[in-house]
Order: sequence, then structure tokens, then C-alpha cells
Amino acid sequence: MTTRPSGRTSDALRHVVLEPHVARHAEGSCRIRMGNTEVLCTASVEARVPPFLRGSGQGWVTAEYGMLPRATHTRGDREAARGKQSGRTQEIQRLIGRSLRAVTDLKAMGEMSITLDCDVLTADGGTRCASITGAWVALHLAFRHCLSKNVIATMPLKDQVAAVSCGLWQGEAVLDLDYDEDSKAQADANFVLTGKGGLVEVQGTAEGEPFSEAQLLSLLGLARHGTGQLFRHQRAAVGIG
Amino acid sequence: MTTRPSGRTSDALRHVVLEPHVARHAEGSCRIRMGNTEVLCTASVEARVPPFLRGSGQGWVTAEYGMLPRATHTRGDREAARGKQSGRTQEIQRLIGRSLRAVTDLKAMGEMSITLDCDVLTADGGTRCASITGAWVALHLAFRHCLSKNVIATMPLKDQVAAVSCGLWQGEAVLDLDYDEDSKAQADANFVLTGKGGLVEVQGTAEGEPFSEAQLLSLLGLARHGTGQLFRHQRAAVGIG
Amino acid sequence: MTTRPSGRTSDALRHVVLEPHVARHAEGSCRIRMGNTEVLCTASVEARVPPFLRGSGQGWVTAEYGMLPRATHTRGDREAARGKQSGRTQEIQRLIGRSLRAVTDLKAMGEMSITLDCDVLTADGGTRCASITGAWVALHLAFRHCLSKNVIATMPLKDQVAAVSCGLWQGEAVLDLDYDEDSKAQADANFVLTGKGGLVEVQGTAEGEPFSEAQLLSLLGLARHGTGQLFRHQRAAVGIG
Amino acid sequence: MTTRPSGRTSDALRHVVLEPHVARHAEGSCRIRMGNTEVLCTASVEARVPPFLRGSGQGWVTAEYGMLPRATHTRGDREAARGKQSGRTQEIQRLIGRSLRAVTDLKAMGEMSITLDCDVLTADGGTRCASITGAWVALHLAFRHCLSKNVIATMPLKDQVAAVSCGLWQGEAVLDLDYDEDSKAQADANFVLTGKGGLVEVQGTAEGEPFSEAQLLSLLGLARHGTGQLFRHQRAAVGIG
Amino acid sequence: MTTRPSGRTSDALRHVVLEPHVARHAEGSCRIRMGNTEVLCTASVEARVPPFLRGSGQGWVTAEYGMLPRATHTRGDREAARGKQSGRTQEIQRLIGRSLRAVTDLKAMGEMSITLDCDVLTADGGTRCASITGAWVALHLAFRHCLSKNVIATMPLKDQVAAVSCGLWQGEAVLDLDYDEDSKAQADANFVLTGKGGLVEVQGTAEGEPFSEAQLLSLLGLARHGTGQLFRHQRAAVGIG
Amino acid sequence: MTTRPSGRTSDALRHVVLEPHVARHAEGSCRIRMGNTEVLCTASVEARVPPFLRGSGQGWVTAEYGMLPRATHTRGDREAARGKQSGRTQEIQRLIGRSLRAVTDLKAMGEMSITLDCDVLTADGGTRCASITGAWVALHLAFRHCLSKNVIATMPLKDQVAAVSCGLWQGEAVLDLDYDEDSKAQADANFVLTGKGGLVEVQGTAEGEPFSEAQLLSLLGLARHGTGQLFRHQRAAVGIG
Repeated sequence: MTTRPSGRTSDALRHVVLEPHVARHAEGSCRIRMGNTEVLCTASVEARVPPFLRGSGQGWVTAEYGMLPRATHTRGDREAARGKQSGRTQEIQRLIGRSLRAVTDLKAMGEMSITLDCDVLTADGGTRCASITGAWVALHLAFRHCLSKNVIATMPLKDQVAAVSCGLWQGEAVLDLDYDEDSKAQADANFVLTGKGGLVEVQGTAEGEPFSEAQLLSLLGLARHGTGQLFRHQRAAVGIG
Repeated sequence: MTTRPSGRTSDALRHVVLEPHVARHAEGSCRIRMGNTEVLCTASVEARVPPFLRGSGQGWVTAEYGMLPRATHTRGDREAARGKQSGRTQEIQRLIGRSLRAVTDLKAMGEMSITLDCDVLTADGGTRCASITGAWVALHLAFRHCLSKNVIATMPLKDQVAAVSCGLWQGEAVLDLDYDEDSKAQADANFVLTGKGGLVEVQGTAEGEPFSEAQLLSLLGLARHGTGQLFRHQRAAVGIG
Repeated sequence: MTTRPSGRTSDALRHVVLEPHVARHAEGSCRIRMGNTEVLCTASVEARVPPFLRGSGQGWVTAEYGMLPRATHTRGDREAARGKQSGRTQEIQRLIGRSLRAVTDLKAMGEMSITLDCDVLTADGGTRCASITGAWVALHLAFRHCLSKNVIATMPLKDQVAAVSCGLWQGEAVLDLDYDEDSKAQADANFVLTGKGGLVEVQGTAEGEPFSEAQLLSLLGLARHGTGQLFRHQRAAVGIG
Repeated sequence: MTTRPSGRTSDALRHVVLEPHVARHAEGSCRIRMGNTEVLCTASVEARVPPFLRGSGQGWVTAEYGMLPRATHTRGDREAARGKQSGRTQEIQRLIGRSLRAVTDLKAMGEMSITLDCDVLTADGGTRCASITGAWVALHLAFRHCLSKNVIATMPLKDQVAAVSCGLWQGEAVLDLDYDEDSKAQADANFVLTGKGGLVEVQGTAEGEPFSEAQLLSLLGLARHGTGQLFRHQRAAVGIG
Repeated sequence: MTTRPSGRTSDALRHVVLEPHVARHAEGSCRIRMGNTEVLCTASVEARVPPFLRGSGQGWVTAEYGMLPRATHTRGDREAARGKQSGRTQEIQRLIGRSLRAVTDLKAMGEMSITLDCDVLTADGGTRCASITGAWVALHLAFRHCLSKNVIATMPLKDQVAAVSCGLWQGEAVLDLDYDEDSKAQADANFVLTGKGGLVEVQGTAEGEPFSEAQLLSLLGLARHGTGQLFRHQRAAVGIG
Repeated sequence: MTTRPSGRTSDALRHVVLEPHVARHAEGSCRIRMGNTEVLCTASVEARVPPFLRGSGQGWVTAEYGMLPRATHTRGDREAARGKQSGRTQEIQRLIGRSLRAVTDLKAMGEMSITLDCDVLTADGGTRCASITGAWVALHLAFRHCLSKNVIATMPLKDQVAAVSCGLWQGEAVLDLDYDEDSKAQADANFVLTGKGGLVEVQGTAEGEPFSEAQLLSLLGLARHGTGQLFRHQRAAVGIG
């Protein structure tokens, strides 16, 4: 059996911390740490919906993603200064939005919008997955805020959602890649799973050699194991179950 | 057994036509039709590489994707007039590029670049998958052009690559969704597979309810069946095997 | 008498093909080939007008022009990726729009808009002229579609309009320049003429030495000859006269 | 015989003033007034050429055009604030550049560039034509500056160039349209002519009904008459002939 | 006592000329010259306010600032061509707007907007200060125009406002820096003062060594002296007091 | 004596915390809290300088400023998504850069650049001043990092620099405005001072009525008092004096 670069066992998550209520102004917020990766997630409630939903009686959940210029080893350009968001940024924020909408009853929200801002303070791999896991906490807290204000009558969240990356390291499936492992992995897959075990998103990419169906299933097995732990962290953070 | 909207059996591809050598100026080209979806793929060879590869002795393959404004039922904005590419466009062109690099020996190319332009003339679902399948033909022909000019010594393509979408329609897995089916599907997955059966990319998304592992495997089974046929079309188009 | 680069006689058009009804979704469409130049023209009907016409009871006809990146000998930048349309693109689409409005009774349209998209699939000189000639067919077919749906009561097109370029080659006037001839011509002029013989636009440019009034008249004479043939092609394509 | 809106006879220019040496820093400059239209033209010399001319031993002349926001009856958007130049602006600056290059021996310049900035201080019709006429003076003075500094050995300007607009007013050809006349004209044509009588650019546009060949020739006749006077003003401004 | 680069005494303004009514179309206008610096200021009245003031019964005064490309020693990029305004441009136009609003009774305006366009024709230092001083004249004249049309009932300008730069040259405070002095000054401060002696804006910047409180007060003393003269020029330009 | 909105005495700073070494990857970093305002400052070292300094042997210090979308009471647009930085953002980052350069011996740096990124995590007034104060700590630590790596031989920081805002509340000068106080202040001034007591920047703005010279001096007196305390916090954070 090989030893992966981080020295963790193949099925070990990094150290996970979910800290709720960290942003003074936001209706819901959570700072998530997965090892050295640190993402600040805020949920902002607005009493209007995008044009395509006006008059529908239905709400909307969307996400924006950003990275502080020095979240990474070498400083990256500030996207606001460059004047546009990269393709990677847009791809990630679309994924976060889809993942959260998958467990939200948009009709139960009524015509309001919640924007999840996921800003990476420190990046060490797995930022999109950490964003989804942390954003669920922020969203849950924002809905609780709305319930307490009687803006909505029932909790629109139908289930939990969390995400984790897995990869193939020297042919073996390993859980929760850090940056160093990710850059050396043969394949890299992000899984977004619900508390009830359903698949919301699967994104697997071969970095070098293609991977096999059996390998895909091994990766999925690890992801189930990892998200199981993340669901417990989420429940603790919002004080349920 | 349900009947899917298109009336096709669950494992039937749409009518496929791959027409090579359709662009007068490009080093390689292919027009692909999958039912009513029609994409023009061209491969353009340039004797330079992006900055991060200069001096590496290695080549690069990249892709750009576009849609004519009236490829769709209602006219869309021209991205050049809006002044930026949408997140969807950028996500698709990154996928096409990764898929083709997965079967290319970049070192065997030497320091040159090939850009695959995939322009959708008519859209009826599955445009990103059709782009990958057609782009492989254009890329193969461009490499053949380079071989005939003695720019490269060996064929850098190591394998075939093709893609197809599958989805869940009333709980049943169906192959090669058209636009109408895609908008009604419960889940939608794009599979990029190699000729030898390896997985290059898996992108599965639940549109409504999450899907199960068993369903993911059913979708993958159909994708293997469909890409098997696409590989034969590709070989016929480039005149091999 | 000199022989022009293409070998055609001075008053010969390239081979012309106008193929109507080529786009599945558009209300009107036409693919035009002038020799190796190939342009796809679609007409899209929308039930609204620009702000300056709201409440006027009058319609609007406008055009957008684009070129696929590998329509040309060497690949050009994709304008959507660069984030703006070039001055050349904007100049051409303004010309196409003006030319078609010159033969349209905008009041007879009522408050609706038609956008002509002219996308160059292969470029070999004369793309703006081919766009105008092909767009007239697409516009005619779109109006026929509106008549058949009783959206309008009478045909708003008052006349035909077509365009052709002419140039001076070694002092002699020649008709319908291809790319090679255009780059060698001493002067280059585009003429937009109506079926009844009126001038809608004249754009003459000296590339090297200025040209004389007599030369301008020779070029205009050839343009009359060439557009006469193009008008017959247009009528055949739409099935009139 | 009809009376045109301005009350001028059909062949009368507006009052013309060409004031040279008006910009403190520019190598050449001229403020031109044609009636109420006022344009500031400056010529800036730079010791470098665009990439496509590097190493060619040849120079380049280009132009930029702008309009102060309140040059017009109602304030227009500042193009710098909107973040892009309009199609009209780009079309005009391309025309000015082509017109001046037509009378410049680019080889005699050596590898340097001159940029003509034409900024409209007050607009009352004919701003593109006034820009060309005034820019020639600025360019001439800039070349004289280069001669005096021994940067070039001979005057690269081979001829004069000037421009004027003409139009059809109630069927009659009239010279030098002001804004009010331009908006009422049946056709509008800009002619760019050289001192020796050659045509550099002809741009005729029917605003309503198409125009005839005979009308085109009447307009051209007036333009010869008008530019004849402008050439005298130019020579006086630069102190030749 | 040192001699400053311009040879002026330490408390001497450059030659000042305020020329009102210079723009044909604007409701108010003024060309201001401070030595070689020349700025054209126009005031444009519009019968609408920004969204945040709709329904408030209150008006708005804002400013835009620009510089002709060859206003400077070496030609600068045209901001419209670059596609964005620099930080310096935005900083200056915000300053001009704030300064004029400080002496305007926005309620007395009713719901209308006035935009001050300050375009630098020649730059030789102090352009932002000259813009403020000249814009006050343009604004005063625009309000007079509105009074004469009975659009407003009382003059909304409560006081005069003018600005001047001062600096430290070899330790000594000097008034009204030109470009050459500004580039050599140890500190540079812009003061915006009202006719009644109040401070509206103070912006002091150490270029090299920090400056002291005593030096700040010397600079302010000079600014009072200089704006006292500018107020007289303003009153003369608008024909009051 | 009035009571200011925050209940603090007129010369009381908010609670100040400077936390160094908070960013894993940056060469220097500091999180600064001034009451509820919280800014993350990182210093990134790069071994190159802007074009205008190449070959000069001199270094450069610059700053970028950003605000997380939900740092404020209501969510603001993400500047990266809007595609440009606001004028306010650009004005602030220019101020931060100038302030730090004022206490840096650029020659002692050699040809390298340091970029200070100041990202506001929570905004409650005074973010630009907090950015300067915190950025000095990050810059000091980055220089220490360079000294420890022998990239530079001597500490290029010549002095400390810190900033604080002051304002007039009901005619009385008060120190360190929070958001609520800032929005109600009659005047608002930012002072950037050095450890030795010199003035680097003074920016005073009357929000309503102009202010007097005596009031400006009162504000400056408070700023001296406040920055004195901030200098002690800075020294403690970097472990000197």
C-alpha cells in the first residue's frame, strides 16, 4: 500500500472546522476550513428575483465565487482589476448554485433571492467543494433568519448537501485532495451528495491516463464516506440533530 | 416501458453524419450532425505555443466554442456584441480542450499549437458532445496534414475520443438527448470516452431529484454503447480501420 | 487587354448559388456562395422595436455580421473572446442594415424588428456584398412567413437590393473581386443597387493612386451588369418572377 | 429653383476658417471651422510603427476621432465612460486615416508613425469631412517639423487632400450640408478628393429614395467646386502656393 | 529667497482668463486658461435625476473630466479607445462634482440634473483646479438659463467655489504650480474654497519628505490669496458684483 | 458637550487589534480590526518592477483594495462580476500605495515589487485608514522576510505610517468615525501621518457646510493623538520598540 503525499490514510479527510455566524452583516454565514483551505461563505437575502422568475411565486438561490489575490502560493491577478471573471471562476460559481438549488424548495421561498458569496481566504485544494459544504450552512442560517422574521413559513431546505474531491494517486483512490496531491493525481473527481445519499453532481476528469468504471466507483465510495462526516459537521454548526 | 419524447428506443443515437474536409482554409475540419444538431469543427495549426510552454519542446491543443445567434429557437445575443463570453461558453470550450488533450501526445507534437473551433450552426441538444466527437476528426486530419508536410514525425493522437449525453426520462436511462428531451430530463450526464474504453470526463447533474449510483451506471452503460458507434463513424470519416 | 488574376473576363461574376431555407429555426434564411465566399444569412423576427421607435407604429430592420475564426487563410481572433467587435465588423453591419432598410416600407411592418445575421463560413473576398444579396432573400422569406401568419397584411419589401464589388486592375475595370484580386486592385468599390436601377450606396476607395470620374463610371457600369444577374438569382431563390 | 434650409446657394460652402499652430504640444495642429462645425486636429509624431511594419523601413499614418459630450444639441455619452467607441466613431477614424495615407509616401517617412487626433468641439454637420481637411494641415505641419529636425529628408506628402459632403435637397444637388440640411436630405455623399482632382473616397448613401447616376455626377461636380476652395484655404494655412 | 522654476513670485497666480458662453449648444459654458493650461467647461441640463433621487424633489450636479490625447507633452492613450477611464480621471471627476454640490442648494433645483463636462484642451498643471473654477461659471450660467426659462424659481447657487494648487518648492510655499513646478515640488496640495472663506476640500500630498503643520498652513494661506483673485474673475465672467 | 453617536469620547479610538502573520502564503500579512471594521492586508513580493522602473535599480510598492460583497449592510456588486473597479476603489488603492511609498526607500529595495492587497472583510467606516495602518505591518514583515533571505541588505522602511479619520459632529471634532458617525458628520478628513509626526496625506471634505481653518486644525490634533496610539500597536505587532 502506497503512502499518499499528505501522509493521511486514503480515506481520511483533512481537519474540518465549520464556524457559523462569522459575518456581522450577512443573514447567514460560515467560515469553513478543510486543512489549510479556508473559505468565507455568506448568504445575502434580497426581496426580489431575477426577471425570468418575476410573478412566478418562486424564489432563487445563486452563488458567486472569488479568491483573494494572495490566497495562493504566488499572487494571482485581481479579477476586478483584470475586468472579467475567468472561465474557472464562472464554472465554479455555477456549480455551487446548482448544488444548493438541488436541495432547496424554491417555491417554499416565495419571491426572494439568496446569494451565496464564497470567498477563498487561503487556497490549498478543494476550494469548490469546501464552498458548497460551507455555503449550505450559511444558507440554512439565512433561512432560519427568514423564518424568525416570518418572511417564510417553512424551512425551504429539503436536505443537506456537501461536496468532496477524490483522486487517483498511484492507482489508488484517496479522499479529499490537497493542492499538492491534486497536482500529482492521475484523476480528480468532485462529488456533490445529499444527506439522503443521492448524487447531485459528479465531475470526474482524467488528468493523464483515462480511468476505469471500477475506479470511478472507488472514488464514489470514498466520497460517500467523506460527506458522511461533513454532514455531521454541518448539523453541529447549525445546531440540529 | 415508457416512450421517450423523441420516439427513439432508449439506446438509440440520433442520425449521425460526420463530413470531413468541409472548410477550405483549415488544416483539418469536420461538420458533424447528430439529428438536427449541426456543428462545424475546424483545426488550425500555428507554429507557436502559449507562454507557459515556450522552450518546453511540447505542443498544445485548445478549443473555442461559439453558437451562431440564430442556431436556437429564439435568437440569442451575439457574444461578440455583448463583449464577453458567457460562463457556459467558457465551461464548454475548456471541456473540449481537456478531452482532446487526453488522447494527444503533446510531446510528439513539438512546439506548435492546434486550436479547435467548434461553431454550432443549428442547436438541438448535445452540442458540447457533438463538438468533441467532430473535433477529434478535425484534429486527426490536421495532424495528418502536418505529417504530410513533415512538420511532425509521428501521429500524436494516441486514441480516439468521443462524447455523448445520456439522461433519466421518467426514471429510465436514455441515450443522446435532444433539446426537448434534455429540458424534461430528471438528470443529465455527459460522458467523454476513449476508443479503448477509458473515461476521460464524467459530468452528471441532477436537474430535479438526485440520482442514484445504479442510475449513474445505467447512464454510463448507454454511453459506452453510443460512443462505440461514434468511434466507427470517426474512423470512417478519416479513412482508417 | 489584360487578363485579371482569376482568369475571368472583366465582366464575369463568380459562380453564384443562393440556397434558401437552410436554417431550421430562423423565420427566413439563405446560404449564398459567390465562388469560394460563403455566407449564412438568417432573418429573425421579434415582436418589439428599439426604444426610439416605441409607439411609432413603425418597424425596424437591422443586421449583425460575423466571421468564423477560420473562415480566412490564417485563423483570426474570435471577437467574442477578444471582447469587442472590430471597427470593420461594425462598419459592415451598419452598411447591411442601411441597404435593406432602403427597400423596406418600415411602416408596413408595424412595430416589429427583423435582425439579419450574416455569418461568413468561408471568406474569399466580397463578403459584405454577398451578405447584402443573401440577406435580401432571408428578409423576403421572413416577411412571407409573417404574411402567412397574418402578422402583417402586405409585403413590406418595395424592391430588390443586391450588391457587388468592382475594382481597377491594371487600369481596367473588373467585376466581383475575389480576395486575391482585391488585395492587388488599384481601387475597390462596392455598389448597392435596387432592382429598379437606383443607387442605395456607393463606396469607392483608392488603394494606391486616386481614380478618375470616368473610372468610377466604368465600375458603376459593371456593377449594374452584375447586380442584374444577382436579381435573377434572388427571384429564383424566393420563387417569384 | 428651391431655397435650401440654410439659405445658401446650392454651390456655396459655409464660412471656412483654418487656424494652424493652435495646440501647444503637438508637432502639427489646425482648428477648422466650417460654419458652426469646429474640429481640433493635432498630429503627433512617434518614433515607432505598428508591429506589421517593423523592419519594413516604412511609416504609418493613422487617425482617431472623438466628440466632446456637449458638442451636440443634446449631451451624448462620453465614450470613455461607456467603455467603448461606437461603430460610427470607428468608421470615421478609419476613413480619415485612409484618406491621409492616400496622399502620403509612407516609404519617405521612414519607420515612424503620425497619429491625427480629430476632436469635435462643436458639431453642426460635416464633422468627418472637416476632420480630413483640417488633418491634412496638421499633418503637413508635422512633416515640416520633422524636416526641420532632419528626421526626414523629403516631404512625404505628395498632394493635398480635402473632403466635403453634398446632398440632394428636394431633388437638387447642394454643397456642404449643415446638420439641419443633412437630416432632411434625400441622399448624402462624402467625397474625398486630391489637389490634382483624383478621387480617394466616394461614400454615397440614399436616406430615402435611391438616387440616380446623373444625381451622383451632380454631387461630384459640386464636391470638385467645394474642395477647390478648401485646397486654397489649406495652402494659405500652411503658407505655400 | 529662492526663485521658483516659473520665475513668478511665490504668491503669484499664472495669467487667468475666463471666457464665458463659448459652447454653442450647452446651457452654460466657460473656457478657462491658467497660464498654458486650458479647459473647456460645459454645463448640460437634463430633466431627470439618478435613480436614488427619483421622487425626492431634489436635483443633482455631477461632473465628467477628460483630456484630449495631445493635451500633454507626449500623446496619451484615448480613454475611449482603451475602453476605460483611469483611476486618476475618476478621482478628478468625483472631486469636481463634490466641490460644486457643496455650494448648490439641490432642493432649490427641483428634480433635474446638471452635468459639468471639463475637457482639457492643453495641460500644463493644475487641470483639476482650473476645472472646478471654470465649471462654477458654466454652472452659474446654466442656472441663469433655467431661471430665464422659468424652470426654477430661485438661483440654487449659494456661494462661489474655486480651487488652486499650492506646493513646497525648496521648502518655500508657492502658489499655482505649473506642470514643471509640480513635478519638482516636495509637496502638492489642492484647496477648494468658497467665496465666504470656508474649506470644501483639502487634498495635500507629500511627494518626497512629509510636510509639517506649519507648512500646511502656509499653503492654505496662499490658496486663500489665490482663490480671492479667482472669485473676482468668476464674478466678472458672469457679470455680477 | 455633545455625545457622539458611538458614545465614545471625542478623542477615543475604537478597539484596535493588529494580528500579524495571518496569511499562510504571503511574505507579510496583518489582519487589522478597528471596532467592527476588519481588513486583511497581505504583502506579496515579486522579483520584477513595472516597465517605467526597469533598469533603474529601484523598487516599487503598490496597493490593491477590495471589499467582499457582503462586507457591508446590504450586499454590493462584486467588482469582478461588474467588470470594472469603481472610482472609489481606484482612489483608495492609489492613496494606500502613495502612503506606503512615502516611508519606503525605494532604492534600498533594489528592483523588486511589493503589492499590498487590502481586502475588507467587514466594513464599518474607516476602511481606507485601517488599510494603510495594517498594510504598514504587512510591508514591514515582508521586508523582514526579504532581509532573512538576503534579498535585501538593509530595511527599506524609513519610518512608520498610519492613518485615521476624524470628523465634525455637531460642530465638535471627533476621532475615528464609524459608519454611522461618518454618514452624519458635517465634515470628514483622513490624515496619513508618519511616526516622526510628518504629514503624508491630508484629505478633508465638507459633506454639508464648509469647514474653517480652526476646525481643520482641531481635526489634525485628534489625528496626531490617534495615530500615536496606532504606531504603538504597529510596533507591538512587528515586535519592535
